[in-house]
Amino acid sequence: MFPIAPELQVAAWLNTARPLSLQQLRGKVVVIYAFQMLCPGCVSHGIPQARTIRAAFEEKDVAVLGLHSVFEHHAVMNRDALEAFVHEYRIGFPVAIDQPAAHGPIPLTMEAYQLRGTPTLIIIDRQGRLRLSHFGRAEDMQVGALIGQLVAESAAAQQVQCDDTACSIR
Amino acid sequence: MFPIAPELQVAAWLNTARPLSLQQLRGKVVVIYAFQMLCPGCVSHGIPQARTIRAAFEEKDVAVLGLHSVFEHHAVMNRDALEAFVHEYRIGFPVAIDQPAAHGPIPLTMEAYQLRGTPTLIIIDRQGRLRLSHFGRAEDMQVGALIGQLVAESAAAQQVQCDDTACSIR
Amino acid sequence: MFPIAPELQVAAWLNTARPLSLQQLRGKVVVIYAFQMLCPGCVSHGIPQARTIRAAFEEKDVAVLGLHSVFEHHAVMNRDALEAFVHEYRIGFPVAIDQPAAHGPIPLTMEAYQLRGTPTLIIIDRQGRLRLSHFGRAEDMQVGALIGQLVAESAAAQQVQCDDTACSIR
Amino acid sequence: MFPIAPELQVAAWLNTARPLSLQQLRGKVVVIYAFQMLCPGCVSHGIPQARTIRAAFEEKDVAVLGLHSVFEHHAVMNRDALEAFVHEYRIGFPVAIDQPAAHGPIPLTMEAYQLRGTPTLIIIDRQGRLRLSHFGRAEDMQVGALIGQLVAESAAAQQVQCDDTACSIR
Repeated sequence: MFPIAPELQVAAWLNTARPLSLQQLRGKVVVIYAFQMLCPGCVSHGIPQARTIRAAFEEKDVAVLGLHSVFEHHAVMNRDALEAFVHEYRIGFPVAIDQPAAHGPIPLTMEAYQLRGTPTLIIIDRQGRLRLSHFGRAEDMQVGALIGQLVAESAAAQQVQCDDTACSIR
Repeated sequence: MFPIAPELQVAAWLNTARPLSLQQLRGKVVVIYAFQMLCPGCVSHGIPQARTIRAAFEEKDVAVLGLHSVFEHHAVMNRDALEAFVHEYRIGFPVAIDQPAAHGPIPLTMEAYQLRGTPTLIIIDRQGRLRLSHFGRAEDMQVGALIGQLVAESAAAQQVQCDDTACSIR
Repeated sequence: MFPIAPELQVAAWLNTARPLSLQQLRGKVVVIYAFQMLCPGCVSHGIPQARTIRAAFEEKDVAVLGLHSVFEHHAVMNRDALEAFVHEYRIGFPVAIDQPAAHGPIPLTMEAYQLRGTPTLIIIDRQGRLRLSHFGRAEDMQVGALIGQLVAESAAAQQVQCDDTACSIR
Repeated sequence: MFPIAPELQVAAWLNTARPLSLQQLRGKVVVIYAFQMLCPGCVSHGIPQARTIRAAFEEKDVAVLGLHSVFEHHAVMNRDALEAFVHEYRIGFPVAIDQPAAHGPIPLTMEAYQLRGTPTLIIIDRQGRLRLSHFGRAEDMQVGALIGQLVAESAAAQQVQCDDTACSIR
């Protein structure tokens, strides 16, 4: 019923010692906030909400990732600029730089998820299924409700274990 | 592990054709906002959050009730004044007037729940168990997370059906 | 060019040892916030803005008064209820109870100023002239700008001195 | 009593066809918001307040300028990045790029005004005198009050006319 979320395609990571993947986060609820550092709605709403989510849930249940999906002003929203931004805004969670396309302005993960723009809130359940892709402002109460519900699906999720080739029921 | 929430003791109801009880709401998550109409934190935070909860969840899953627990200024926070307040603030969900005590200022439901004051957010799960009693400001994200989790406990809750005399597993 | 503001007609005063009048406040800028204790916009916006004005200007330059102009729910917005409200909301500036009319719901000062409703922000200059009557939400920046301008008119105002019978230029 | 504000030292201007100077703005109240595009408080508070000031006062009375005073992360807060920022945040008023120093990170206007950091709100009266230099958050009511007062000083200001060599009283 819900599609499996496509794997992230990442040029580089900030705030994490080693690269992350949805595959290895399977079993947790994964929250991905797609943003651009010069996008006003990302700065006023998206980043603060990502931080609120990080504070409200435990790391063992919920992973929170930023995804810097640059589709305009590429020259000035480069890695150095993003590092300054992450430092100034005291962003503590891992941030992935969406892999630029060989041709055209839309980076690869943004394309795979068919995002309309930034900020977009993506929520993936414990079984790796895409449960929400919301462009624009989302209310805390409703975001909390969905993540809370997905966290509570743990019993069912633990019955299903997936590896690279298949999912099996224990 | 979680105690069964004590039944409400109510002098009168507003916004509902007939009296409600926790007993008859068993099976739903029940959110009760204890407030006083002249309590600043209730007006600025509690009532708006109750309204946000009402909008974020479906009536079939979550009941939202106000509980007017007057423990000071009794003469002016009477039923007529509350009706004007409910009208002016366009409160649409049912509101219970907490039963005054025969002696002393603390009404009976407030006493039974040992509330510290108003606003207090009370959350009861589908099986009638008290899961939260939070005095003061609560963040939308965390409130949403808890209610979302409790809504998701439906499968288990539906296996247990309670009536006046007993609970049985189907 | 600007009309002289009509005198206040007051049934009773709270938060002041003796009655006030515009006549005796001549020489100061006078800010009057007309409100009703059960008016949501008054509680969320008007009262806080009155408090902000009180904090931003000196008492020697600017007087801040509340005016409780009840035109609905008269029975429950009585003096006892207002006293509880003023206590709970920690209102420190003087509050006048607008004199009820012999006939009809509109009190006398509200009628004299032809107010459309509450909250209404009334601003009177140092010479007693009505400079603003604004119904609904007013932005802090613009309110500050007007009061700041009127405070700065002191030099001119000091040249004109008014008593009960006449105004003279020194 | 109030010192004459030092002239701006500017590497380049955005949003204006030709360079501006305090000298040529003499006779208006001048509001300068010193900011950095990657400074969180500038983005959440300073830029919106500058926009609110611009909307609250007339151009004939009050000039509003941005001053991009970069003292950290110089490489990524360059002119191209600032242009993207100004575009994305829809900043409509003129923005000066503070002249970098030959040695050291502090640009020249920032140094001349001895700014502690960003955001800093600078307000200059109609006679070119420095009346406020406020680092950090400033309340709208108080900012409006000061600018309103300075706008009202017009009569006095019009008596004094300054050119490049001198000020004379008409």
